[in-house]
Amino acid sequence: MRLGRYFPLFVMMHLIIFSLASTVAANEEMSKIAPEDPLPSWNKGPTKAAITSFVANTTNESHPEYVAPDDRIATFDNDGTLWCEFPDYVPFLFMLDRIKVMAPEYPEWNDTEPFSSILSGKRYSSANFSVNETMLIYVTTSANLTPEEYMSLSAEWLNKSLHPRFGKPHTECVYKPMLELLSYLQSEGFKVYIVTGGDEDFVRTFSDEVYGIPPEQVIGSALRLQFVENNRNISVVKLPQIQVFDDGEEKVEEIVQNIGKRPIFAYGNSDGDIPMLQFATSDNHLGIGLLNHHDDPIREYAYDRQLAMGKLDRGLDLAEEWGWQVVSMKEDWKEIF
Amino acid sequence: MRLGRYFPLFVMMHLIIFSLASTVAANEEMSKIAPEDPLPSWNKGPTKAAITSFVANTTNESHPEYVAPDDRIATFDNDGTLWCEFPDYVPFLFMLDRIKVMAPEYPEWNDTEPFSSILSGKRYSSANFSVNETMLIYVTTSANLTPEEYMSLSAEWLNKSLHPRFGKPHTECVYKPMLELLSYLQSEGFKVYIVTGGDEDFVRTFSDEVYGIPPEQVIGSALRLQFVENNRNISVVKLPQIQVFDDGEEKVEEIVQNIGKRPIFAYGNSDGDIPMLQFATSDNHLGIGLLNHHDDPIREYAYDRQLAMGKLDRGLDLAEEWGWQVVSMKEDWKEIF
Repeated sequence: MRLGRYFPLFVMMHLIIFSLASTVAANEEMSKIAPEDPLPSWNKGPTKAAITSFVANTTNESHPEYVAPDDRIATFDNDGTLWCEFPDYVPFLFMLDRIKVMAPEYPEWNDTEPFSSILSGKRYSSANFSVNETMLIYVTTSANLTPEEYMSLSAEWLNKSLHPRFGKPHTECVYKPMLELLSYLQSEGFKVYIVTGGDEDFVRTFSDEVYGIPPEQVIGSALRLQFVENNRNISVVKLPQIQVFDDGEEKVEEIVQNIGKRPIFAYGNSDGDIPMLQFATSDNHLGIGLLNHHDDPIREYAYDRQLAMGKLDRGLDLAEEWGWQVVSMKEDWKEIF
Repeated sequence: MRLGRYFPLFVMMHLIIFSLASTVAANEEMSKIAPEDPLPSWNKGPTKAAITSFVANTTNESHPEYVAPDDRIATFDNDGTLWCEFPDYVPFLFMLDRIKVMAPEYPEWNDTEPFSSILSGKRYSSANFSVNETMLIYVTTSANLTPEEYMSLSAEWLNKSLHPRFGKPHTECVYKPMLELLSYLQSEGFKVYIVTGGDEDFVRTFSDEVYGIPPEQVIGSALRLQFVENNRNISVVKLPQIQVFDDGEEKVEEIVQNIGKRPIFAYGNSDGDIPMLQFATSDNHLGIGLLNHHDDPIREYAYDRQLAMGKLDRGLDLAEEWGWQVVSMKEDWKEIF
């Protein structure tokens, strides 16, 4: 069964090696067993080839880089990697709208920063707030809710909020090539996790439906939880205290804490994903690291070293040294959405 | 396929209802399709029936208590639930031995409690140490190691340490009826997690091999981790700081943080498991809760309300009120190991 499954890939590899010597025979072979392309929205080229050959090698029992299915762990960032994060992070837009919804109960916010600026519309983008302010907004909009309540508010908001440029729900502004990649990896026995700076429960709201990734494979930022017993009703509630801010090195710490294994496939798009890619591609480990480079101003956005939001600066410098694939959304992707 | 799979259980249920009216026909039916007993080490009786009918109902699409496979989450305590925790918790025995191994590097321990008592043999059981002392011992024996180093030390220790009474490795002092239950649930589409007060990495060392539960489905106590970059070598190291002490209410908080779902099957053996059972069997939730009652002094141990270690006191009081199954290891289990 396994041999049968990978037979086309074996054949393709042999074809490349022996193509000059036996073109006619090879063509005959090809036409008989032409494999279906698992990544139709990816243009042919070195990036796509790096992905498919990595998967072919790690799933081929007779290849030196073979990895048993249990250890085929793949980790993906979410914002800017799986869905559009421009002009702003979707989890942050949800928080800003929550502040506006909550405001009538907190009249003092009209004179208290950062709330007053949000309510007056003076500051409307994550780039306008300091890290501490962002944390305060995060805590304020999530605390004292049960995860179920929070997820229900998230789902309601996701259902009615549209992307300002594309005019579609954010859950439809997901990258088609990435959906294909998630399916491809899963069909090849990889266990795929999301490791996001966004709130864990926010992403859990749609991860299964949109990405085919179940809630328990979503690792993200989170508030501390508190067990609550109310007569016979047992729940947990979010405390106004950040347990995990899942970005940068914390992504690696959370991966080990939650999974207990080192990923062999790590995919991000900003400098906050560097440690995760380093962890997968560390010395003596065969992992592959990939970064989406947002370089398509026509079909999506072009942002790069200069932009604070979703910044990819050091990552571009390190990519060559570490052997990471920089995925050009303009060149490598046939379609974006 | 599904109908075929559960057909024997349907028939059995009907047999019970109609047995007086149609004994002969029923017997004929039975002999034709006699289902294989998934729990051969469990004696027939109300406990076993409660388990099998819960599984039958929640996996039967036409039953009102049907639960989709994605939501069939089962959580099991480890010490005293899956393996023997008497005369002492295995993770604690590992720590005591680590102190002895580490002692030559720390001559000051000869005059510092709790280390001096451990080294002199004056105190040799978890019951002899305060919670703060236990935490200090835990941190001291784990900090500054990578998870890989810690797991390798755990594995080495587990390979050579024998249970003092049974003379077998601790990983062979696992309960046969519980292994059958884990397999049974997994074969019925349940995703089974261990939720343990023991160190997460300690249990991850053997969970897959012994229980068939992969490392990523082990939730337990843990130290905080720190990302470490050393040239091109990337790892994490355990800091001398407890991130999670996974007992009591914290078990529920960790379940929600890690899984994002409410278990429908929760199994423990001590008062520290009460919140987890309450969470599964809370109002408006159909979950089942079970507690191992160590009441077999001949084949294992008998301990109960009086004993500090593995204490099951309030749990026995709450079991009736909450409808939990108290599993008598003496009466309900044909074999223990």
